[in-house]
Amino acid sequence: MANLRLPGPTPVPDDVVKAMSKPMIDHRGAEFAGILRRVTENLKKAFETKNDVFVLTSSGTGAMEAAVVNTLSVGEPVLAVSIGNFGDRFGKIAQTYGAKVTNLKFPEGEISDVAKIREALRKDPSITSVLVTHNETSTGITNDLEAISKVVKGEFDKLFLVDAISSLGSIRLAMDAWGIDVAASASQKGWACPPGLAMIAMSPRAWEAAKKANMPKFYFDLTEAKKSLEKGQTPWTPAVGLLYGLDHALRNMLAKGDMRATYDFHAEIAGYTRDRLRQLGLRLVAKDMKYASNTVTAAYLPDGVRDSALLNTLRDEYDIIAAEGRGVLAGKVFRIGHMGYVTKADIDDVIQALEKALPKLKQGAGAPAR
Amino acid sequence: MANLRLPGPTPVPDDVVKAMSKPMIDHRGAEFAGILRRVTENLKKAFETKNDVFVLTSSGTGAMEAAVVNTLSVGEPVLAVSIGNFGDRFGKIAQTYGAKVTNLKFPEGEISDVAKIREALRKDPSITSVLVTHNETSTGITNDLEAISKVVKGEFDKLFLVDAISSLGSIRLAMDAWGIDVAASASQKGWACPPGLAMIAMSPRAWEAAKKANMPKFYFDLTEAKKSLEKGQTPWTPAVGLLYGLDHALRNMLAKGDMRATYDFHAEIAGYTRDRLRQLGLRLVAKDMKYASNTVTAAYLPDGVRDSALLNTLRDEYDIIAAEGRGVLAGKVFRIGHMGYVTKADIDDVIQALEKALPKLKQGAGAPAR
Repeated sequence: MANLRLPGPTPVPDDVVKAMSKPMIDHRGAEFAGILRRVTENLKKAFETKNDVFVLTSSGTGAMEAAVVNTLSVGEPVLAVSIGNFGDRFGKIAQTYGAKVTNLKFPEGEISDVAKIREALRKDPSITSVLVTHNETSTGITNDLEAISKVVKGEFDKLFLVDAISSLGSIRLAMDAWGIDVAASASQKGWACPPGLAMIAMSPRAWEAAKKANMPKFYFDLTEAKKSLEKGQTPWTPAVGLLYGLDHALRNMLAKGDMRATYDFHAEIAGYTRDRLRQLGLRLVAKDMKYASNTVTAAYLPDGVRDSALLNTLRDEYDIIAAEGRGVLAGKVFRIGHMGYVTKADIDDVIQALEKALPKLKQGAGAPAR
Repeated sequence: MANLRLPGPTPVPDDVVKAMSKPMIDHRGAEFAGILRRVTENLKKAFETKNDVFVLTSSGTGAMEAAVVNTLSVGEPVLAVSIGNFGDRFGKIAQTYGAKVTNLKFPEGEISDVAKIREALRKDPSITSVLVTHNETSTGITNDLEAISKVVKGEFDKLFLVDAISSLGSIRLAMDAWGIDVAASASQKGWACPPGLAMIAMSPRAWEAAKKANMPKFYFDLTEAKKSLEKGQTPWTPAVGLLYGLDHALRNMLAKGDMRATYDFHAEIAGYTRDRLRQLGLRLVAKDMKYASNTVTAAYLPDGVRDSALLNTLRDEYDIIAAEGRGVLAGKVFRIGHMGYVTKADIDDVIQALEKALPKLKQGAGAPAR
């Protein structure tokens, strides 16, 4: 069995798999309501919020769509801040549904410059909302959300929508303290569950926006989700088995009362990964280690090494599944995921494989492509 | 452990549960592509179509939304035929996204009258599309889709969108032979998988419509799904574990080459359920047994018996989970699901419980509500 070192899905622990094997139950019954309420309460702790957290049956992209269509209107001017592929996607969703999107893009490997966000908001006071990615898996960079919030909320008091898909559950996000209006995540990231569930929370300010938001929505209508949650239900049939898993995973993660141990674990394993990769002479995409992601590390391919050759060698000879580059970094980088329960020993396996594989691939670089 | 007799979720067989317990894999890798392609090919057999069948990570309602937003435009006149709660929902989705919806509703317990569909299409030649529910779980009625198709396609050549969520996999639907342009289902129905996946197929005519359909869409954009399927992928991270289950379930169902044995099994168990319920003196919602559903039976509550009292007694004293009424039938009926692998012995348990419970509940009917 191969070792997944992807930025999602991440391996699922055996006890979570076992929890998901329980028989189906009525999603309109009391037992389900109990599970949903416990999941919601635990997600509130993880999001550091008093707001309800809704569980959607979708990937994280579905939750990004929910963030947009529940708070924005057609023609509404928004600022889409992007530090990579997933930031671009967030802006594209808003555009698809008719928002007037101003894109503010930063170069690969850099975080969002708050001075430029300030400048953009000053330049166009009609902008109502700011879309930001917390952790950008395409580059392995984590934005300084607290610093961005000081501008977006503190100075300009805009609606602040955050794609926290690959951070929440692994990297701290304090929804209420940082003034975040919408935050979204997905089950296959640091939560270490299979993909299929997304989680999303809305602040009172976001609910105010929801009242006048005129973008069309049905499946992702969070007003319906809110009404249903009061009855311990979801508006549409939920992925019951995946919810068993998330319930179990959250109880494990919060066994010590909060998420600190989980965040520390991710920080340590990420630092270890970065150190080991740099010791191999690899250059990381992150320009400043201060902003390097604790869930995924992207490194440039050494000269002459093709991504497919490296990834296939890791897979076929070392049983390790790493990820290719995305967007502008496609063909230039490879990525190592370390979210969920990835250990130093797992990272050592990756490093040892790279130590053996890279020299051979460099030697063979002159050979014609097969 | 309680016995689920719901119109979804239905109990999941042990071997499907086991299949879903396999480790996560890369959803951008070759192994996943193999699974997705096999699932797609088997779904094509079950849908009786040459069209691609796309697997979405959502409930069936998500697939209904996909059917609408991928083929229709804002202001487009459509006819929404409804024989119950889910028919109403299909029309409401179209309306939410801006279609000009003409609702054609039929009374509870009746199928759609093709003469009235013909009349509606004659009356408003601007109507481009017709939305129909194949099997209406709120009433336990199965529309005669072939007869409807003769009018919708044969006489008027309209775009024909079918919610087959609770029929496909249990009750025959021949997508190509019956000229259906969009057909959608969901995993927790006759496929006997957990909820969380929906399946949807589009005819060449539907793809033509998709080219000019201007309703906004992102997560449910089937053009993206089509591009991704060519690479053996889905556009957004799929519910990998649930796909393992669907793959296994489909191989079981198609072990004999086609779905006939599965349809016969459902027809037999449904007939048995109807006979036994009527022997108890209960009146079914279906007025004509010819159109009674093979996946769910709805029966009126005897005079003086409240639905909550009956359903709670079945649950607490007999470990049986049946369903309440929905929409206009709320409080008037109860429903017994018999989709997937429900057996005659399972139905006997329900009947024996009703035999004991109903007389007591009738006696207690005069007592004040607790």
